[in-house]
Amino acid sequence: MTLEAAGTAPISASAIRMDVAALNAFMENAFPEPRPGALPYVVQAAPGHVQARLDPGDHALRPGGLISGPTQMGFADMVAYMLVLAHIGPVAMAVTSALNYQFLRPCRPGPLFADAHMLRLGKRLAVMDVRIWTEDAAKKPVGQANVTYAIP
Amino acid sequence: MTLEAAGTAPISASAIRMDVAALNAFMENAFPEPRPGALPYVVQAAPGHVQARLDPGDHALRPGGLISGPTQMGFADMVAYMLVLAHIGPVAMAVTSALNYQFLRPCRPGPLFADAHMLRLGKRLAVMDVRIWTEDAAKKPVGQANVTYAIP
Amino acid sequence: MTLEAAGTAPISASAIRMDVAALNAFMENAFPEPRPGALPYVVQAAPGHVQARLDPGDHALRPGGLISGPTQMGFADMVAYMLVLAHIGPVAMAVTSALNYQFLRPCRPGPLFADAHMLRLGKRLAVMDVRIWTEDAAKKPVGQANVTYAIP
Amino acid sequence: MTLEAAGTAPISASAIRMDVAALNAFMENAFPEPRPGALPYVVQAAPGHVQARLDPGDHALRPGGLISGPTQMGFADMVAYMLVLAHIGPVAMAVTSALNYQFLRPCRPGPLFADAHMLRLGKRLAVMDVRIWTEDAAKKPVGQANVTYAIP
Repeated sequence: MTLEAAGTAPISASAIRMDVAALNAFMENAFPEPRPGALPYVVQAAPGHVQARLDPGDHALRPGGLISGPTQMGFADMVAYMLVLAHIGPVAMAVTSALNYQFLRPCRPGPLFADAHMLRLGKRLAVMDVRIWTEDAAKKPVGQANVTYAIP
Repeated sequence: MTLEAAGTAPISASAIRMDVAALNAFMENAFPEPRPGALPYVVQAAPGHVQARLDPGDHALRPGGLISGPTQMGFADMVAYMLVLAHIGPVAMAVTSALNYQFLRPCRPGPLFADAHMLRLGKRLAVMDVRIWTEDAAKKPVGQANVTYAIP
Repeated sequence: MTLEAAGTAPISASAIRMDVAALNAFMENAFPEPRPGALPYVVQAAPGHVQARLDPGDHALRPGGLISGPTQMGFADMVAYMLVLAHIGPVAMAVTSALNYQFLRPCRPGPLFADAHMLRLGKRLAVMDVRIWTEDAAKKPVGQANVTYAIP
Repeated sequence: MTLEAAGTAPISASAIRMDVAALNAFMENAFPEPRPGALPYVVQAAPGHVQARLDPGDHALRPGGLISGPTQMGFADMVAYMLVLAHIGPVAMAVTSALNYQFLRPCRPGPLFADAHMLRLGKRLAVMDVRIWTEDAAKKPVGQANVTYAIP
């Protein structure tokens, strides 16, 4: 392949190119002055899987005191982005092409966690499953997303 | 039906119960202290259709200077909410159950517009199509959403 | 609730009301004369999970010799239906309200398997995740679906 | 671009390369022995838009006498395929990468119609909106789909 010809290992879902520290450093660099609680951080990274955490600020609450839908969707999008970067490395640009979010349960205030799993990593598209959950939810997700990234 | 028994006209996609002024007053009341540029406002409301505008603040930009995905998805969600309320009135609670967003084109800074059309208004679910566009896009949408609201 | 008042246990994702034999008997009764290979059968049923198998007939192939998209989507829909019925029992009608399918890999001829997991079972909506795979795929799914059923 | 270098106009949503007759001839050639009522035919083709008709056979009915979900989804997929081919021509392979279907209303037996509109035609992905309706539905769609095709 082109990538191999250039002396680089091909993109693969069976190995990662960025670990937890590298992913978090990339994020902090890309979003240098986030509002408090706006930026998630990666807590686990492995081939095919990234787990992240978000501590939403007050701006993330909607009337009724629950965590807003856009906050959840934005978190899902960000974790999917981290999962893509973990596999393709920090040099490549990737953009969301589709995000499908199912709101499953009320999302109570407090830390949010997300598990993103790679369903398919192709040369041009990455398709991922993301589950979002809270500490009190006993592993029942508050939301589930399918996220597709286009890889240039 | 229950609603008729209570002396109320049934919910219908062929008539609205809230006009532009009522929708915007509802929004300002529900979100009393939004960040600048975080709250859209309705510019048209008719049976089956609402158009709204958002003037995103700087916080809505992502690295690269484009309007972020969560800003677009949040706008789509909000306009769908306005379309539901226009038909069922301000008394009823409604929550998003699914949002499917297609990112179609780069979303350049500036005012954002959204057209939400009702695909189906049932007693329990409202399904809507939302197109988001900018002034310079010559009617080509930057994004398209399907939004489903559960009506209690 | 109404169901309890009627002496019935409430619908729950933690117990099933139909086992493998009951689900397959229901299917054969509902679709009495399927074309060969058109009807899947359930091989496992447990709280929150159903696994099924389909042996597609020749009509399921599309030009190029792969199993067609509608065959995959129809299989996903059917397995989701089985998962709903397993929990709510054979008496209730349920209809698909949304199906979102991601085509992940070429689907080669041969037996198809599907795992459907319940993401949320509410009184009015059931949301499920379905993965479809083949024997030669080494656990890599050929497709993934989100299926929502409305429960009357 | 490569295509221009080869003496061909670039792919564009503002011109079609195949008209109604060419699209129907392509379909009949690709699916030489369809079951009766399994193959739709194109009735209109214009830049950005294709309309097609399906006369479903008995095999398309599900218990209850309505037109089955997979029939509707298969029809949506096929019309989206026709819309892609109309713009890129018969030489190129294209495969569905995602299909998101909203079931809006009961689909009664009889002729089905579909309008597919191009939301975005890129070099690698085509994103389309498809509405399916019947003659007695007074323009209210029975289903709506978002279909994404990958263009090699």
